[in-house]
Amino acid sequence: MKSLPLLVGLGALTAASSVFAWDYVLLDTDKAAQNQQITSQQLGVKTDKPFTVTMRTLHGGRQEGVSIIDIDNGTMKLSVVPTRGMNVLQASVGDVRMGWDSPVKDVVNPAFIELNGRGGLGWLEGFNELVARCGYEWVGHPGMDNGELLTLHGRAANIPASKVTLQIDEKPPYAIRLKGELKEQAFKKVDFSVQTELVTEPGSTSFSLNDTLTNNGDYPKEYQALYHSNFSTPFLEQGARFEAPVKQVSPFNDKAKGDLGDWQTYRAPTSDYDETVYNIVPYGDAKGDTLTVLHNKAGSLGVSVGFNTKQLPVFSLWKNTDTKGQGYVTGLEPGTSFSYNRRFQRPLNLVPTIAPKEQRQFQISYSLLADKGAVDKALGQVKHIQDGRETEVRKEPLVDLTKEQ
Amino acid sequence: MKSLPLLVGLGALTAASSVFAWDYVLLDTDKAAQNQQITSQQLGVKTDKPFTVTMRTLHGGRQEGVSIIDIDNGTMKLSVVPTRGMNVLQASVGDVRMGWDSPVKDVVNPAFIELNGRGGLGWLEGFNELVARCGYEWVGHPGMDNGELLTLHGRAANIPASKVTLQIDEKPPYAIRLKGELKEQAFKKVDFSVQTELVTEPGSTSFSLNDTLTNNGDYPKEYQALYHSNFSTPFLEQGARFEAPVKQVSPFNDKAKGDLGDWQTYRAPTSDYDETVYNIVPYGDAKGDTLTVLHNKAGSLGVSVGFNTKQLPVFSLWKNTDTKGQGYVTGLEPGTSFSYNRRFQRPLNLVPTIAPKEQRQFQISYSLLADKGAVDKALGQVKHIQDGRETEVRKEPLVDLTKEQ
Amino acid sequence: MKSLPLLVGLGALTAASSVFAWDYVLLDTDKAAQNQQITSQQLGVKTDKPFTVTMRTLHGGRQEGVSIIDIDNGTMKLSVVPTRGMNVLQASVGDVRMGWDSPVKDVVNPAFIELNGRGGLGWLEGFNELVARCGYEWVGHPGMDNGELLTLHGRAANIPASKVTLQIDEKPPYAIRLKGELKEQAFKKVDFSVQTELVTEPGSTSFSLNDTLTNNGDYPKEYQALYHSNFSTPFLEQGARFEAPVKQVSPFNDKAKGDLGDWQTYRAPTSDYDETVYNIVPYGDAKGDTLTVLHNKAGSLGVSVGFNTKQLPVFSLWKNTDTKGQGYVTGLEPGTSFSYNRRFQRPLNLVPTIAPKEQRQFQISYSLLADKGAVDKALGQVKHIQDGRETEVRKEPLVDLTKEQ
Repeated sequence: MKSLPLLVGLGALTAASSVFAWDYVLLDTDKAAQNQQITSQQLGVKTDKPFTVTMRTLHGGRQEGVSIIDIDNGTMKLSVVPTRGMNVLQASVGDVRMGWDSPVKDVVNPAFIELNGRGGLGWLEGFNELVARCGYEWVGHPGMDNGELLTLHGRAANIPASKVTLQIDEKPPYAIRLKGELKEQAFKKVDFSVQTELVTEPGSTSFSLNDTLTNNGDYPKEYQALYHSNFSTPFLEQGARFEAPVKQVSPFNDKAKGDLGDWQTYRAPTSDYDETVYNIVPYGDAKGDTLTVLHNKAGSLGVSVGFNTKQLPVFSLWKNTDTKGQGYVTGLEPGTSFSYNRRFQRPLNLVPTIAPKEQRQFQISYSLLADKGAVDKALGQVKHIQDGRETEVRKEPLVDLTKEQ
Repeated sequence: MKSLPLLVGLGALTAASSVFAWDYVLLDTDKAAQNQQITSQQLGVKTDKPFTVTMRTLHGGRQEGVSIIDIDNGTMKLSVVPTRGMNVLQASVGDVRMGWDSPVKDVVNPAFIELNGRGGLGWLEGFNELVARCGYEWVGHPGMDNGELLTLHGRAANIPASKVTLQIDEKPPYAIRLKGELKEQAFKKVDFSVQTELVTEPGSTSFSLNDTLTNNGDYPKEYQALYHSNFSTPFLEQGARFEAPVKQVSPFNDKAKGDLGDWQTYRAPTSDYDETVYNIVPYGDAKGDTLTVLHNKAGSLGVSVGFNTKQLPVFSLWKNTDTKGQGYVTGLEPGTSFSYNRRFQRPLNLVPTIAPKEQRQFQISYSLLADKGAVDKALGQVKHIQDGRETEVRKEPLVDLTKEQ
Repeated sequence: MKSLPLLVGLGALTAASSVFAWDYVLLDTDKAAQNQQITSQQLGVKTDKPFTVTMRTLHGGRQEGVSIIDIDNGTMKLSVVPTRGMNVLQASVGDVRMGWDSPVKDVVNPAFIELNGRGGLGWLEGFNELVARCGYEWVGHPGMDNGELLTLHGRAANIPASKVTLQIDEKPPYAIRLKGELKEQAFKKVDFSVQTELVTEPGSTSFSLNDTLTNNGDYPKEYQALYHSNFSTPFLEQGARFEAPVKQVSPFNDKAKGDLGDWQTYRAPTSDYDETVYNIVPYGDAKGDTLTVLHNKAGSLGVSVGFNTKQLPVFSLWKNTDTKGQGYVTGLEPGTSFSYNRRFQRPLNLVPTIAPKEQRQFQISYSLLADKGAVDKALGQVKHIQDGRETEVRKEPLVDLTKEQ
């Protein structure tokens, strides 16, 4: 335990020193979000890379009242949005930016979004994040299921976080943990909570999400999760490649059939391309761990997205290589499910159930691959996990969408 | 009239002394809700039971910005939610709590609810109150009526109160009155206002609602009102009973037919029970006053809900004796109407009309029956009102719901 | 350039002196709306009519958090609502008020409105302005188009303005310009921004809107705009008249056919009248400029609405001469389009397209005609523009609404 003389006078900050970490409550029932900053210097932490965590509030437009938490770990700068499901707005190392340029420029307060608008596509009015949580009652395209309109990708990205806390380990490597709880609750319908966690370390070019879904209810409930992780330039470009240990790949729909031969490579920004989506069943290693990689054409810069196939057994590759203005972006999307409406996924056994009081963990790690060495090392891991196993390339979509009414 | 030297320095409080009462504006167009407290001590009131009224604001999650007014009358503690239709969140005397445990834990700001979501069941995302106002354009189950989707139980519970005032009588028994106005207005559609009032007295174990609906418009309008009053343990338990002077009782739907024989008693928390609802036409006394009672199995603890059958001629008994986690709760619901969609209630003559500039009053009193004596006394009143008159037990629902399309 | 010693101590105000104007940022991403005032006296401006600009915030009810900017130019008082699309709430000169009395009394925060509610008529829950911007993805009555429910009159009136600035020219006539940006953005759907501007001058009885719509996207997009400009007494009364240079007039629907003979005159408040609407194609002068006039029966008081037919080629005359309580009001509505659902307007060639990065300007000027001389002068302009050209009076609506399903 450590005394915190440097915190005297910080006012808004309440630091509780636990055995292992400094704890700050940034937002809670009786504590409003407010502009504040916590620095390694204040904590008396000597690291090669001084770090800073800053909380601020946005104003104007549809972003009125939105909270942002900026974490600068000394090397990587991350922005997290408590008001929008603890989504990761962006991350950057120097001038290399993970994330993308959506036409949506505001960080939109969910108070101003009707998810049921636009035929269930209201979610698109706020979509601009590097990582947007999808779930947890459902994910996928809008449409009727059990007599109810399921809106695009569920509610998680538009649930403001309840209690938000920051923990900083007191010992090297001084891990920085930002936690926020999402409550997805409706009488008779659902009683989920999701304890989200983002972890990074001073000087690191990686961060991890470590989410725990709890079914607080007394009944088993269907659930779905999908981590919509979106990248653009400098990773995405003509000739950029996606690599993963693949057991099965199939086109999402008829449109994607046409480009199936090139499913692992990307186009330049292409007018009228819209999007193609490929459904992937990845291989994991003995523990289920797997790794997916996006790298530029030269193989000199990339990102990896790692996850566990026992937690998130399938993966959607979203290739939205339309024009820059329309949103030149690819989504690497580990999930319990693909992006079909829930009613199409039950026959695929991709609508799992969570028993009363049970929990599910979803852990995803994001790393910048800053040079050819890092890219090659990650591609080596992919090959190692594939381990010579076969890849089934299905020519037809798993779902006959023409049966949709 | 009384001078208020003790209020000097309270800052936010503006007390205007009228002939009979201290008046405080807690919220108005030019006055934001803020943390504040008014106490009997400040007022120089000497009562056996000192009282306190506190205003606070909730933060985080979907409750961001929600105002709560806590009234501690010295014996009973009440929490009222201006941001949610002046609903009564809960009331308690010692460790006896009126109210229930909904899966919805936040006190949800209506800004985050789409009432039209979930096929018109969006209301369920905020439902957790002891008393939730339903109305006033309509109440009842979602469904189409006149080409419009009527959402569950109308808008009242999700209308933030405009001007909120606190009045405390200057003379014994120093009645405490909390008022808040709800505006239910849409061009060409509706021009209602509801002056809500909650009244209690220092040391009392009762409170009353005294609402006045005004049709400010120039045309007669249909209206409906229902006071969704919800109780759980320690009143609700296996063998708990409901008593009222009953002229007619009928099952709400086919499901309720099965339990009709036991309509007045309750089950323990029962897995997969969901709910049964009974439609009741109560008898009133010569003035129309009536009393309904819920008491535990031993008859040693209960609550009574009193109202006037000229104001609120029908009553729904909602028996949601599912598991505790799902929401173990019963609703005692006096209303102008049952809980059917409005289109089913017109043929039952349960969709009244309010003429231009007319008003309707809805007065409901809630009392804790703290011991067997109090329970027995209330049951005596019920019997007195029944006065030996017959109870018609209808075996079939009043409405053929299979005709719903 | 001018030094601003008088601004020292204003705190919240940041005045940047440009070559031509004082610039104040009233609202921006990092600047919350707050109560503040800017006066000609502070600026050291000597005008016959001292002016004042005030920003304030509303509380309570569904107007919680709404910002209002009041401009008193010394003669005319204007209220603009940044939270509601920079709509003009009202304008008045002495006791003559431009605007009307809607049953909607709150200035409703869009966070509390479901535009998709009431079958797409949710917009009516906030409608009470003198000028409500309609557009820009669509305008018109709710209904399905391309598989999506288009809600009444689009989103503009319910988009909170992003960066809001006030500019005051440093030289006579010291024009006062209030600007606010509206972002209408949804991934894959739309990427519009609208730079709104309201201009008035000290001592003037006029104001102008000068809006610039930009399609930031990479694809051509359909758009529509309509300026819903609403007036009541003292202009509107029995025998009041509407005058404009008219090329074609037609009834909006069958109901309006009945009153076609009297389309230019108004009734007294009339029970059960509801509304009639006339579709007008105005003539413009050589530059396309045109003028429309509403004046009282005596011709001694009126308002003019001027616009350019190249920007806004059509005009809806909305005659809602129902009772005062229901809303006794007429709308003078220049637009790209009439008020039919968008799907009906394509065959009329009233759904224009805006190319990528292109802009469209919409300029409308509103003037009080304070006496008979001013009214006569405006009517002379109307006659001058008409220039003896014929008016086609069509007896049938342009659209067969019975084909609506």
